[in-house]
Amino acid sequence: MDRALQLAARGPAHGPNPRVGCVLLGPPGHGTGPRPVLGEGWHRGAGTPHAETEALADAAWRGHDTRGATAVVTLEPCAHTGRTPPCTEALLAAGIAEVVHALHDPGHRSGGGAALLRARGVRVVAGVRADAAARLVRPWHHAVLHGRPWVTLKLATGLDGRVAAQDGSSRWITGPQARAHAHAVRAAVDAVAVTTGTVLADDPALTARTRTGSLAEHQPLRVVVGERDVPAAARLHGPGGEVLHLRTHDVATVLHVLAARQVRHLLVEGGPALATALLAADVVDEVHAYLAPVALGGGQAAVGPYGATTLADARRWSTAEVRRLGQDALLVARRRPVTTAPGADRTRPRAQEEEI
Amino acid sequence: MDRALQLAARGPAHGPNPRVGCVLLGPPGHGTGPRPVLGEGWHRGAGTPHAETEALADAAWRGHDTRGATAVVTLEPCAHTGRTPPCTEALLAAGIAEVVHALHDPGHRSGGGAALLRARGVRVVAGVRADAAARLVRPWHHAVLHGRPWVTLKLATGLDGRVAAQDGSSRWITGPQARAHAHAVRAAVDAVAVTTGTVLADDPALTARTRTGSLAEHQPLRVVVGERDVPAAARLHGPGGEVLHLRTHDVATVLHVLAARQVRHLLVEGGPALATALLAADVVDEVHAYLAPVALGGGQAAVGPYGATTLADARRWSTAEVRRLGQDALLVARRRPVTTAPGADRTRPRAQEEEI
Repeated sequence: MDRALQLAARGPAHGPNPRVGCVLLGPPGHGTGPRPVLGEGWHRGAGTPHAETEALADAAWRGHDTRGATAVVTLEPCAHTGRTPPCTEALLAAGIAEVVHALHDPGHRSGGGAALLRARGVRVVAGVRADAAARLVRPWHHAVLHGRPWVTLKLATGLDGRVAAQDGSSRWITGPQARAHAHAVRAAVDAVAVTTGTVLADDPALTARTRTGSLAEHQPLRVVVGERDVPAAARLHGPGGEVLHLRTHDVATVLHVLAARQVRHLLVEGGPALATALLAADVVDEVHAYLAPVALGGGQAAVGPYGATTLADARRWSTAEVRRLGQDALLVARRRPVTTAPGADRTRPRAQEEEI
Repeated sequence: MDRALQLAARGPAHGPNPRVGCVLLGPPGHGTGPRPVLGEGWHRGAGTPHAETEALADAAWRGHDTRGATAVVTLEPCAHTGRTPPCTEALLAAGIAEVVHALHDPGHRSGGGAALLRARGVRVVAGVRADAAARLVRPWHHAVLHGRPWVTLKLATGLDGRVAAQDGSSRWITGPQARAHAHAVRAAVDAVAVTTGTVLADDPALTARTRTGSLAEHQPLRVVVGERDVPAAARLHGPGGEVLHLRTHDVATVLHVLAARQVRHLLVEGGPALATALLAADVVDEVHAYLAPVALGGGQAAVGPYGATTLADARRWSTAEVRRLGQDALLVARRRPVTTAPGADRTRPRAQEEEI
């Protein structure tokens, strides 16, 4: 499964389909040595063959017989015909005797592969390294499970949480390393959203650029949220991803439209009004907070009042990573698991004995 | 000098005197091996013997003759009589032939030791590992040089730079590891200051506590800034350091009074009005920004407008450290060196070619 996870990671993080890896192992022999690898494959994105099909083709190209073999795959094999035929049929046709998979496929249409295989006499072992597989496809898994994109909110602020100085100047609060990191994130998401206010104030291109300044291979969909017009000369209309202007302030509408376009991972880069609306709707799944060692004092705050009036009710995430990027810090935090152990809720005031 | 620096670090970070270490080496022999260590010493704080005296006493106790020896010391030997006699006299009396020191003593009264020693025929080598020695005594060096304490501003905020929720609740924004770190900082400074507003809102004890909750050995002076009365029942009046109430809003007055009390390192923990006044006066030498993965939305901001209206004029520090403390991040940033290379000023807008 480690190898299958490695293969899966070769696929693109963006796109409507998940990253999946597959390794085909020969039937157990009489010895105790490792089972031979017959073939390997990974999914390269929507419209291309699935990992299982790739692995079967690899085995055929190598001249191996797959009858009686075991397929180790990071996601439950799909059971539906999309742009490609169902993997379950391909595995059955190849005579696979056993399927070991990590993550359960939460899709309404694609799911059910394990049950189908079992009904057809294949031994199925589920849940092997499911956590690692889930991490690899976090936005996809969330989006398919909940019917809306995984939302990453990017904040680039001074130490006082402000996104601009009093006169509106904000270029650049963070340094080149933080900005390069942010561009790499853009190149891994499906869509990036800003408000019309941000377009009018900052005129962002919303492209994903490499460290040399050229356009990255994958460009996210550029989403503008708000009712005002976007100027025809806006840099947003330059080379880059498709531009989608959603003339609404309703977060649910935005997410619904993007889900219908198979956007699994949405990066929101501002402005504060959109960030605040997302917090109010409790749909911020991840925060990327870039913090520069500067105090802006009087400028616009990254987020405004969103309905939580007390600390216990404030949106709180679980920190995944803290790192230094040049002069800046990056804190990555994600939605906390729904189930928490009793007493684990740190947002509640602690015992009065602790002094400040 | 490495050894002398190690010895120096054994002394206390707080107090009116600097941390100093001294190693006495025997005269060079005819061989090429390392010179013998005759004695070692370090300064344990005001009122106790200086490092040089300690090292000479150590050499005497070991039965070594120090005539013709070299004294390696992290700070220029003092030339004045304070609570202890001048080190220059002790070194001369012991027949020391050579002094190798790191940092120059910026003190008006204590300085001048190197010149005095040279005039009396001692060979003096200055500036060896001066940077490392300066780091060890940063607040002291700054305070003696500039006549005011080194000011560390502590901010404990959510990702949106707020220090409290809308209803004022702020216990606890950061987690236990961040709070333990903050207590360790208190145990290393001379004084900790808050406003009367913070006393009335949060009733802090302003003690330095160990991880077990007991009082640390050293307790900082507790300074309250503002004109309102502090309630007699305030926890501030409990066990801990001396309490000093300065009925002023003037930052220069506060720093002047504390400098006169030989406070070298002042930790300011709030509230926002004091933080803002310090920024306006440009006396924030260091920032300790503790950031919790929470969005407070509508509460009080850590700092308010302080006079910088554009990004280029905003106070910016140089990041020294970024680390994770449990769920929180800590960013330590310090005053940037006055001399910067041309073009090194990152607060200026960069070339227009760079896109956002």
